[in-house]
Amino acid sequence: MTPNNLVHENERLDELHRNGYYIIQDPARFCFGMDAVLLSGFARARRGERVLDLGTGTGIIPILMEAKTEAEDFTALEIQEESADMARRSVLYNHLEEKIRVVTGDIKDASGIFGASSFDIVTTNPPYMIGQHGISSGSEAKAIARHEVLCTLDDILRESAKLLVPGGRFYMVHRPFRLAEIMSKMVACGIEPKRMQLVYPYVDKEPNMVLLEGSRGGRSRLTVEKPLIVYKEQGVYTDEIYDIYGY
Amino acid sequence: MTPNNLVHENERLDELHRNGYYIIQDPARFCFGMDAVLLSGFARARRGERVLDLGTGTGIIPILMEAKTEAEDFTALEIQEESADMARRSVLYNHLEEKIRVVTGDIKDASGIFGASSFDIVTTNPPYMIGQHGISSGSEAKAIARHEVLCTLDDILRESAKLLVPGGRFYMVHRPFRLAEIMSKMVACGIEPKRMQLVYPYVDKEPNMVLLEGSRGGRSRLTVEKPLIVYKEQGVYTDEIYDIYGY
Repeated sequence: MTPNNLVHENERLDELHRNGYYIIQDPARFCFGMDAVLLSGFARARRGERVLDLGTGTGIIPILMEAKTEAEDFTALEIQEESADMARRSVLYNHLEEKIRVVTGDIKDASGIFGASSFDIVTTNPPYMIGQHGISSGSEAKAIARHEVLCTLDDILRESAKLLVPGGRFYMVHRPFRLAEIMSKMVACGIEPKRMQLVYPYVDKEPNMVLLEGSRGGRSRLTVEKPLIVYKEQGVYTDEIYDIYGY
Repeated sequence: MTPNNLVHENERLDELHRNGYYIIQDPARFCFGMDAVLLSGFARARRGERVLDLGTGTGIIPILMEAKTEAEDFTALEIQEESADMARRSVLYNHLEEKIRVVTGDIKDASGIFGASSFDIVTTNPPYMIGQHGISSGSEAKAIARHEVLCTLDDILRESAKLLVPGGRFYMVHRPFRLAEIMSKMVACGIEPKRMQLVYPYVDKEPNMVLLEGSRGGRSRLTVEKPLIVYKEQGVYTDEIYDIYGY
C-alpha cells in the first residue's frame, strides 16, 4: 500500500510534530485530545521494556511514546475494529510495524489474551465518565471512548495488575473528580500510586486532568509533581505545553 | 487571672491578626506553622455546628476558626497536659472560654470520651511522619507533634468516623507523599474525600501540603481546587496567603 491508500475518504491525516509522524483520524469517531499527549509526556519507558496500551483508539499513545522514549516494543489493544484498523494504518504510514502491534480485543479479557506478567508498562487513557451518565452524542464510537460502557475503572485496574510484572509501571490519565476512587482502587488491587501530576488549565483554575504513575507492588509513598499549567493566557500555551507537544 | 498572669516566663505571646486574638506559644515545645493557618482557612463551619479539633496543641485551629467562621461550639483535644494548659490559657486570654473547651485526652480514646456521632465537624493537623522515622530533635513535645508516636493516621480516621454525625465533615492538613494512603484509608473507613487543595510553595515546585475535606458517608466525587501557591517570589507571599493570614 502506498501512504495515500492508507487514508480513507472520511479520514484526515494530522501531523504529530514528532519524528515526522502522522496520525489518521476520523472526526465522526473520536480524535485524540490533550490528555493522550500529556500522558505520552508523563509516562517513562526504557529500551527493552514491553509496553501495552489499553484502549488505544487511534494508536496515539504508543505512536507518540515510540517517538519520545527508547522503548521499541509496543502492543495496543482496541475493542472497536474500525479504530483498531485505523491505528494499524497509522502504524504502517509511519513505518512502525516492527515496533507497534495493534490487537483487536476486549480490555476485560486482556490478561487472558496476553498472559499474566507479560508487560513492564501499561498505559491507558480510559473512558472517564461513569456508566451511561451524561451520554448525549449520537456516535457510539465516541460514547465508548468517553463513557464506561464497555469497560470500567475496575476492569482496567484488575487486568493491569495481572498483566504487569512485579515492579511494572502503570500510567493513566483521568479526571480529578474520580481521584479518591482511583487511588483507593489502585491500592486495593496492588498498583501503588507513586507519582501524580495535576493539570490546571490556568494557574487560578481547578485542574481538569490528573496524570498518575503506579507500581505493581510498590511501597506507599507518592510524589506529587509541580502543577502542569496549560495556558499562560487565553489561547497561549505555557512553554511546558509547547515542549510536550513538540512545537 | 489578669492577662499577664496567663503567659509564663518561657512563653511568648503572638498576634494572630484576627479579631485582636493572641496565642501563647513555647518555642521549646512546638509553635504552629502555616499548615494550621491554611487548614483554618480551608475548613468550613456554620453557626450551630459542633467542631472537634483532634491534637490541638496550642489550640491554634479552634481559635482561628472561631474568628473566621460563624461556629461557636469548639472542643479541642490534646494529649500533652502542658500543651493543653497553654491552649486553655490562650482561650482565657482571648475571652473565648464560653466557646472553646480544651480537654486533655488521647485521640485513640476520643469516641469513648465524647461519644459516637457527637460532632458535626472534625479538624486535625496530625503528626505527618510515620513512626519514629527521622526523629532527631531532643524535644519529646516536638516529636509527638510531628511523628506518629502516640497516634497514627488509622487512629485519627477510625475515631473521626465514629465521632462524626452522618454527613459530618472532616478537615485535615497533611503531606502529599501520604496522599494515596490517606485517600485509600478515608474511603475504607467511610469518610469520603470530597474536596482537596494542594499547596505549592512556588508555582513551579512540588506541593508540600495537602488540604482535605471528607464527608462521613458521602458519595464518591472529589473536587480538586485551584492550586494554592504560597510565594510569588522569594520572601513575598501571594495575595491569597496574605488574605488567609489576615494581614
